[in-house]
Amino acid sequence: MPRPKSQASAGTRQRLSDAALDLFHLRGYNGTSVQDIVAAAGAPKGTFYNHFASKEDLALDSVARYSAAMGLEMLDEKQGGTPLERITNHLRFITGLSDTMGDRGCLLGNFATEIPAHSGVLRDAVDAGFGRWVAALAVAIEQARAAGELHGNEPARELAGFVVSSYEGAAARAKASGDPTAVQEFFAITTARILT
Amino acid sequence: MPRPKSQASAGTRQRLSDAALDLFHLRGYNGTSVQDIVAAAGAPKGTFYNHFASKEDLALDSVARYSAAMGLEMLDEKQGGTPLERITNHLRFITGLSDTMGDRGCLLGNFATEIPAHSGVLRDAVDAGFGRWVAALAVAIEQARAAGELHGNEPARELAGFVVSSYEGAAARAKASGDPTAVQEFFAITTARILT
Repeated sequence: MPRPKSQASAGTRQRLSDAALDLFHLRGYNGTSVQDIVAAAGAPKGTFYNHFASKEDLALDSVARYSAAMGLEMLDEKQGGTPLERITNHLRFITGLSDTMGDRGCLLGNFATEIPAHSGVLRDAVDAGFGRWVAALAVAIEQARAAGELHGNEPARELAGFVVSSYEGAAARAKASGDPTAVQEFFAITTARILT
Repeated sequence: MPRPKSQASAGTRQRLSDAALDLFHLRGYNGTSVQDIVAAAGAPKGTFYNHFASKEDLALDSVARYSAAMGLEMLDEKQGGTPLERITNHLRFITGLSDTMGDRGCLLGNFATEIPAHSGVLRDAVDAGFGRWVAALAVAIEQARAAGELHGNEPARELAGFVVSSYEGAAARAKASGDPTAVQEFFAITTARILT
């Protein structure tokens, strides 16, 4: 029995979204064409624009999906555990993503450096993704300070931004070397020097 | 009096090299074509391949020039000053490059995230650029420890790698936001938390 058209259509959209996330992460924005994505998705030719307005629109979808999978919810106090435990769990989780760092890096960091300045909505989406991450980490750092688990008088948002920077740079170095060691060292140094 | 051909030729090579460094830094590797570079250099059409074997060859030239301008010589003990003073001067210098970070980021970091894994010589050149930087910083950290200016028992190379990562990630965030604040915060947190 053939699927109703609406289900087939939803399937095509999902496959385009999946293929884009994979290819943008591996080859970058400029290194991936709409044609590449359609081919990888096995989508019928000419259906792309039924689902996405542009390559940029699809890249926004990739940024949203990637950001949603970075474990920010692990920082939320609803998770239980002390604030420092939640921060450490989150950092351990993103460090665990390093298995693919040697090939792919972090999608947010890749887009941040690849997309030219003033390129509009995609760059803004990447910046907003960093912003949400820094904000969530800053809240947890403040909670850890209030609980006496962390000390120091830098603004929590500044310290959180530094942690995000350190991770992104480690992911970039891992991608350049094809070796995840830099990301593992990020975890070791951050827990020893920053989470104090 | 017309210039001898060899001088005109050297001038064209230099202009291609200058234009490539500028465009690769601003728009990335995939975002810059040989045609763009030839046009920006005002070079006679068809002369490109008299000077460079490929776009990749020209990108290697850009990486070498960019790396040579990152102030690694400031870390060398021939510069005088204490090891910690030399490290701080170097970090202040690279932080000062942040005036353009909002538009361009760091060329090494941009290429690291943009160039796909296993892409060969260009990726290796970027990795080697990071490697020389980490090695020079590690030597200075060891000297600072021997002089009693720095403490801590992490391998110096690991700590140096973390500093380079933190800088690269800050440059990426500055590029995403169009604002150099993340790079200035890199300097503040690194001097307070890492150079101890």
